Amino acid sequence: MRDAVPPAAELRRQVANRVLDVYSRYGFEPISTPALENLEVLMGSQGGENEKLIFKVLKRGARLEAAAGQAGAGQAGAGQAGAGQAGAGQAGAGQAGAGQAGAGQAGEADLADLGLRFDLTVPLARFVANHLHELPMPLKVAHVGPVWRAERPQRGRYREFTQCDIDIIGEPSIAAEVELCAATVDALASVGIAGCTVRLNDRRLLRAAVERHLGQVDAGPVYIALDKLDKLGPDEVAGELARAGHDRRAIEGLLAALSAGEDGVPERLWGGATAPVAAAVRRTLEALATMGVPARFDPTLVRGMGYYTGQIFELAHPDVPYSLAGGGRYDGMAARFGAPPLPMCGFSIGFERICEMVDPGRLGPPRPKQVVACTSDEALLDALQQARARRQQEPDLVLSVVRQARNTQKQREDFQRLGYSYSQI
Amino acid sequence: MRDAVPPAAELRRQVANRVLDVYSRYGFEPISTPALENLEVLMGSQGGENEKLIFKVLKRGARLEAAAGQAGAGQAGAGQAGAGQAGAGQAGAGQAGAGQAGAGQAGEADLADLGLRFDLTVPLARFVANHLHELPMPLKVAHVGPVWRAERPQRGRYREFTQCDIDIIGEPSIAAEVELCAATVDALASVGIAGCTVRLNDRRLLRAAVERHLGQVDAGPVYIALDKLDKLGPDEVAGELARAGHDRRAIEGLLAALSAGEDGVPERLWGGATAPVAAAVRRTLEALATMGVPARFDPTLVRGMGYYTGQIFELAHPDVPYSLAGGGRYDGMAARFGAPPLPMCGFSIGFERICEMVDPGRLGPPRPKQVVACTSDEALLDALQQARARRQQEPDLVLSVVRQARNTQKQREDFQRLGYSYSQI
Repeated sequence: MRDAVPPAAELRRQVANRVLDVYSRYGFEPISTPALENLEVLMGSQGGENEKLIFKVLKRGARLEAAAGQAGAGQAGAGQAGAGQAGAGQAGAGQAGAGQAGAGQAGEADLADLGLRFDLTVPLARFVANHLHELPMPLKVAHVGPVWRAERPQRGRYREFTQCDIDIIGEPSIAAEVELCAATVDALASVGIAGCTVRLNDRRLLRAAVERHLGQVDAGPVYIALDKLDKLGPDEVAGELARAGHDRRAIEGLLAALSAGEDGVPERLWGGATAPVAAAVRRTLEALATMGVPARFDPTLVRGMGYYTGQIFELAHPDVPYSLAGGGRYDGMAARFGAPPLPMCGFSIGFERICEMVDPGRLGPPRPKQVVACTSDEALLDALQQARARRQQEPDLVLSVVRQARNTQKQREDFQRLGYSYSQI
Repeated sequence: MRDAVPPAAELRRQVANRVLDVYSRYGFEPISTPALENLEVLMGSQGGENEKLIFKVLKRGARLEAAAGQAGAGQAGAGQAGAGQAGAGQAGAGQAGAGQAGAGQAGEADLADLGLRFDLTVPLARFVANHLHELPMPLKVAHVGPVWRAERPQRGRYREFTQCDIDIIGEPSIAAEVELCAATVDALASVGIAGCTVRLNDRRLLRAAVERHLGQVDAGPVYIALDKLDKLGPDEVAGELARAGHDRRAIEGLLAALSAGEDGVPERLWGGATAPVAAAVRRTLEALATMGVPARFDPTLVRGMGYYTGQIFELAHPDVPYSLAGGGRYDGMAARFGAPPLPMCGFSIGFERICEMVDPGRLGPPRPKQVVACTSDEALLDALQQARARRQQEPDLVLSVVRQARNTQKQREDFQRLGYSYSQI
């Protein structure tokens, strides 16, 4: 987690406005959802590893007392009641003591009732179920806000970060994927980030490849390993799969097939039952090409979340080794919350990542900024009054009034660094 | 907590942009801070009742396990360890079981390490201490974001809501109060909310009144009771103070003095040692009057937070019974985090409250919005491509493309309600 110090926060605001303006013009209507959701909304949402990274909020008052008492009563030994269980559960999910995870998680669930959302997709599915009848269908929404993941802090990874999502609810065809990709490429172009390429895959192709080579296995852990191909390379990933018990030769076959698929011909790759899926991938690529949006098939693309049901995509940029946006189709997710099994598809920009790439000079000429430093109480009150009148006359002028500091030189430099011209009265 | 459904979220965005634009033009530089702070930042911050309403985040992994084990070991009986303590602590703080609060809070603190901020002022004090040397002084910042309070849900009170603060750090004189009030009145005027009046008081006057009538008492609970004068009236408040052990006649004297002070003459009211404080209140009122900002002395104004050290103020509007913004001086708060004891003063808009008052028609003419409903997959992909070209030619046009619904009439009406003209191809 981190603070945004001037001028970073102003840049964020400008970038968010540009991006949202492009999305608005595509007809994506802004919505927002609360940061806290009931834990049962977030848990069991097929959020993959991210479900283990939820910040959980302690129950409050009598409910916490009751939960703790109950948890305690269920345990024979003293001193390990309630919270002791919880500790083991969290450890099981993330770091150690996996043997205790089952019982432990139940204990932790007793202590917490709310969680901070780890993405905007799961809350959106809940939103759609709650507001279905108030809204047009197909529904196109833009959804921006912070999300939280309890990761170990490391360079470039933050525990609180902002996602900027667009989603189309109720569109079953590739028109959804095509529009999401085109709108996102346009949104990034509006803040001067050109040259993005869509990488496209389909979860059903990935599953077919895994099943053909590794057999009927639990695909989740395999996806998690394959997702690291970019970062770790094929040897490390093969090692991880081998340690998980898969046959060495089968693993090599899978990795060879995935890398061979990079010639961009999805139909040839998996054949048989996946032919219609591969054909749809091809049609998406063609539609994007027609619109001038660079896109390519990438059979190694996995995406971290477990909830995807069809095409998945990321936005790559030659200047950075990570993707700027990621998304996919997650049909039916709102059914968990009582809605019909609607088609849903979304694309999420990693907002901090794009802000880091934006050149402020490309957002247009900066406003004139002036600061007036005053030497006395009287001068200060007078200047405040005059500044207010001047701002009304010059609607583009930024005019700040402050007391003159003892170290005038430092004050001048500090303000100049933020783009102000400095004068004294 | 609640969702923002179209068009509410778009209105929020427009209002936030207008308000921040006014603040920017005054030289308030945007900053942001994370939603989660270490609990020790939030606790003991003199946040008054709000400290008891903090949403606390469970420790994670091995740390939670260790904390729970420790808490357990410290208790002899089974089944009430760790979390059992925590429950009592929370209950003590808010609803019941006050006798166990001391020990209980320690237990709860063992289980949680982070908390969701209950305001933006305490995080700002931490921010100032962390970034003092990177920034100009005096520093003027605009700080917008959600805050959380675990209140019982009730009409018009939400557990997640947005504050929009401006603060001046390093200005000891009333110039800070004057500029904060003028800028906030201008910000509200920019979204069509005119006719606001500043209510102004000073915590030191309030303290003098309490001490003169009730003697050397713990002023905190008295402030909390006086803060309800608006809502409950003098009889209920007198009853609450009497139940807290204060003398009936003394209470009546205090309430009479406060209500007599409403003639707007701060100097006459308390006399003696408070004369310079009262004179400063008068100068603030005069400076605001000179700038055309309506303001009046209100000796019954209290504000909920415990951290104020000088002038306090709220913004009243004739259309609503609650204040639209509240603030005050909280000199020295950043010293808790290792900074020098800087003067600090801030004003916070209750963002949801002002959004409810904004008439969207006053934010300027709406953009033209069109939606094209397509009957086939091919028409849809074609329309997506043509729409993209049209948006480039008409930079103000909102143009959405969707699949035609079976119930065309309902689809048309749903889109029209959001301001779209509807056509089919």
